[in-house]
Amino acid sequence: MSELSDKSSNVVWHQSTVSRTRREEKNQHKSVVLWFTGLSGSGKSTLAHAVEDQLYQLGLHTFVLDGDNVRHGLNKDLGFNDQDRKENIRRISEAAKLMLEAGVITLTAFISPFKEEREMARSLMPHGDFIEIHCFCPLEVCETRDVKGLYKRARDGEIKDFTGISSPYEAPVKPELKIDTNALSLEESAAQVIALLRERNILPEKNN
Amino acid sequence: MSELSDKSSNVVWHQSTVSRTRREEKNQHKSVVLWFTGLSGSGKSTLAHAVEDQLYQLGLHTFVLDGDNVRHGLNKDLGFNDQDRKENIRRISEAAKLMLEAGVITLTAFISPFKEEREMARSLMPHGDFIEIHCFCPLEVCETRDVKGLYKRARDGEIKDFTGISSPYEAPVKPELKIDTNALSLEESAAQVIALLRERNILPEKNN
Repeated sequence: MSELSDKSSNVVWHQSTVSRTRREEKNQHKSVVLWFTGLSGSGKSTLAHAVEDQLYQLGLHTFVLDGDNVRHGLNKDLGFNDQDRKENIRRISEAAKLMLEAGVITLTAFISPFKEEREMARSLMPHGDFIEIHCFCPLEVCETRDVKGLYKRARDGEIKDFTGISSPYEAPVKPELKIDTNALSLEESAAQVIALLRERNILPEKNN
Repeated sequence: MSELSDKSSNVVWHQSTVSRTRREEKNQHKSVVLWFTGLSGSGKSTLAHAVEDQLYQLGLHTFVLDGDNVRHGLNKDLGFNDQDRKENIRRISEAAKLMLEAGVITLTAFISPFKEEREMARSLMPHGDFIEIHCFCPLEVCETRDVKGLYKRARDGEIKDFTGISSPYEAPVKPELKIDTNALSLEESAAQVIALLRERNILPEKNN
């Protein structure tokens, strides 16, 4: 390994596993999973990206898993029946767990309407590393927004088992955070998440 | 967002997507997928972890996907028939792609015996971001090592479709790197990978 020694004299050879702890030390912040849940149109993805942008500016390492990068990739073989929806959430949880292990603050933005599946996701992570954030917004407001036109299609019967219309949304009973995205601005909503991360010492000390 | 403003005056509010490019800027290194392929016992996982340890010491952000963290998690529902092996590699590729997007140098260590599946993995990544590393080691040497006792079980007929025994290994025709893990020490093998990353300017300038 002459070349390595010559050019990088600070590199000491020893074979060991780079652990999550060592990654967190280098990153100077802990990793965590922020699990955003709520109706379609409740602002999950918008909020997750807004929070990520703030965290990026604070120097943290982050990643958002959402429909845009999961549904057409890792989970592109899955449909929307019960079994596939469950598998969808399972794979997202496992991907989030890998990201967590990689030292990345991982934000997931999926409706994830069923309590059982969110609890499954939580159970995969070490205690305290799963933060459930309920983006609360009344159905009628989400339906009025209908950014993607999905509610109309669901009402017209074009989409089956649509959460809030023809399939239940089981609201979290005790989420770590419940944000009223209808009453609060995006800035205020993001500030609530950041505040929780400060309380939990996820943010590095220099920013606390 | 008074609290945010008060405590972090350096944070400017603007909502935008944190891109791979912005992550790479902050990390001060590019991300890439290092795809290790080779027979069972050829040293893929050992080499991947050794390379990761070197990269960690150089300050880079890395993650190894291997049987240990994938087979019991993301892909725990998959067996070893043709369809499942294909799906195994597909999901690993998609997970690696997410890690790549997250700015992480991602090392995968799977036998991945079939050319078609490795080409599928390559095709998912932007051009130049997939580096195929063939860990070459003669079958008889791998079988003599038989660290996990798998070759014996395959010879005894306990494991079906075992690569090299009862299922083919399609060696890469033009991998980015071919490492003779039988002739080279672990240190020398890792140095070859690091050297390639230097050539490709994946390592930050201060270390070049």
